Amino acid sequence: MLGVGLIGGSIGLAVRRRTGAEVRGYDADARVLARALELGAIDRAASGVAEAVGDADVVFVATPVGALAETARAALAAARADCVVSDVGSTKRALSEASADERFVGGHPLAGAETAGVEHAREDLFEGATWYLTPAAGTAGVLYERLHRLLSTIGARPTAIDAETHDRLLAVVSHLPHVLANVLVAQAASTFGGAAHGRVTAVGPSFRDATRVAGANSAIWIDIYMSNRDALLAAIDEHAARVERVRAVLAAGDAAALGAWNDAARLDRERLPGAELTGGAAAELRVAVPNRPGVIAQIALALGGAGVNIRDLALAPSQDNRQGVVSLWLDDGGEAARASELIGELGFPVARA
Amino acid sequence: MLGVGLIGGSIGLAVRRRTGAEVRGYDADARVLARALELGAIDRAASGVAEAVGDADVVFVATPVGALAETARAALAAARADCVVSDVGSTKRALSEASADERFVGGHPLAGAETAGVEHAREDLFEGATWYLTPAAGTAGVLYERLHRLLSTIGARPTAIDAETHDRLLAVVSHLPHVLANVLVAQAASTFGGAAHGRVTAVGPSFRDATRVAGANSAIWIDIYMSNRDALLAAIDEHAARVERVRAVLAAGDAAALGAWNDAARLDRERLPGAELTGGAAAELRVAVPNRPGVIAQIALALGGAGVNIRDLALAPSQDNRQGVVSLWLDDGGEAARASELIGELGFPVARA
Repeated sequence: MLGVGLIGGSIGLAVRRRTGAEVRGYDADARVLARALELGAIDRAASGVAEAVGDADVVFVATPVGALAETARAALAAARADCVVSDVGSTKRALSEASADERFVGGHPLAGAETAGVEHAREDLFEGATWYLTPAAGTAGVLYERLHRLLSTIGARPTAIDAETHDRLLAVVSHLPHVLANVLVAQAASTFGGAAHGRVTAVGPSFRDATRVAGANSAIWIDIYMSNRDALLAAIDEHAARVERVRAVLAAGDAAALGAWNDAARLDRERLPGAELTGGAAAELRVAVPNRPGVIAQIALALGGAGVNIRDLALAPSQDNRQGVVSLWLDDGGEAARASELIGELGFPVARA
Repeated sequence: MLGVGLIGGSIGLAVRRRTGAEVRGYDADARVLARALELGAIDRAASGVAEAVGDADVVFVATPVGALAETARAALAAARADCVVSDVGSTKRALSEASADERFVGGHPLAGAETAGVEHAREDLFEGATWYLTPAAGTAGVLYERLHRLLSTIGARPTAIDAETHDRLLAVVSHLPHVLANVLVAQAASTFGGAAHGRVTAVGPSFRDATRVAGANSAIWIDIYMSNRDALLAAIDEHAARVERVRAVLAAGDAAALGAWNDAARLDRERLPGAELTGGAAAELRVAVPNRPGVIAQIALALGGAGVNIRDLALAPSQDNRQGVVSLWLDDGGEAARASELIGELGFPVARA
């Protein structure tokens, strides 16, 4: 565990308690490292990256976003050939160098970024949380499987997505909302916060919701904004164009168009967040695949892109090691049928177990 | 009670149960009116505005925003000389005609606008909720007092604000957030909702918070957007200018400026929502005032504008009716001191009781 703040510390707690595996940790801040040890987030404090990595099966890079690329590079240099290295950064393209290594799988848990610090680490932080994984074409299937399994064990829902889509998605659904929250709160304060206009004594729930993340931890968020700058600029530009369009409709006093716009937003909202985990029985699929890099990533991305959740997966190489079988456990019913179809389209034989 | 939906029905329930007063109701929709009677939101169903108003002491106009002005006019025509007429609309300047009548005080409770319909009416809907009142210069003090007292009795926190400031405030803290929620959800859906890009399987809490009000009830919100169009257009223009500024900072890669902007937003957010009701002991102030219209409105606006909450107030005219004493109950400590100062600045003698 490289970096033992909120996320690294929570992974450590969860892995130690749920798998019994030994967790070694390193943090550039010696006080944070000592505290992580005290809190039981790690078994041993290492004196540097190489010592922490040692002969680990899995390495997580959980430093601030600005230090991710460098730490991932050091981790890959120190790790053995069949160790999977992942990270928890909220933007992924910045790690494209690491992604060229077959042992690296980018990751991003959608959990608890607001209260930083190992003091807030919790074993159940990832319970039910989507954990985006960004395998590349060369990612080793057996390492992807190990990571996926470990994340499922600590309660997360690993979901594959390609790195570029991930960053564009996060720009729209996370980074832009943070920007708008800041803009909104500043506008309200400058218009009504001063003595000249009287103090704002009360605001409605829509304002509180819209500005809950305003002024989030600057150390974290400057890194995020900067590391996903291109995608965020594009998202801001599209936002501005959309605001300009609704402004024109409002200025024209076109009530019918306003209504259509509002109705469409309601439909969009109902459709967007996606189906939640139903908790029903799992269905198992078996897929025959050639034993070459990238196959698992290809399947995981196809299913992730279609919103099909893979609860668990396992690889079983054939005797001659030229071919293998991937077993996939999916939410029951439609999920399995949809997954069979998608995998069939990739050209792999698939059967319901 | 003219209009017995969520808000009108909730006022009816609260007034009936907490004061024992008789509540007569009218609604243009006969089924809604019958349902309000069944649910105990009104004592009697009237066949029209004039019959509902009768010899009431207090009349609330709680129709949709689009029908407010006309219904308020009819209510004032039917009401007796010492009846106070108020409304619950979320924009206030549209009622400027009614406000010319000394019996009219505009109102706007910040409570539960999302789940419309008398079925959702609740006695405690206004418990602890700010209820903006927009008295005009000519508002009769004794009528303002009666309305203020009644609202306090049903658990609300009446707060005076001038109508124009109210509408500009609500444009920024309510109507603009609704617009942005719609824009954000549409952007996410158009970018990631289509089959071409794969389905969005998960979004973070910041997106859920920012879009919670997306696509709110069209019948209500088209009226609100249209009735507060000028203020909302101004708020949108300022929003666009602010977004453009932060875009420039991001495009320039100026991390220090981003940090300053984010820090400022945090401070703004901490400062904005204003002090909540502490529940401490009330302090009483007595103010000697000339017995003329507008004095109560003047005091209420000065205190409301400074964020000082008036828990209750009472008017006691002198024997010769030329002068009076207003008793004000305020949250203890700093509030009373601040209120004394503000009232002193208005030129009225004030004493701590």
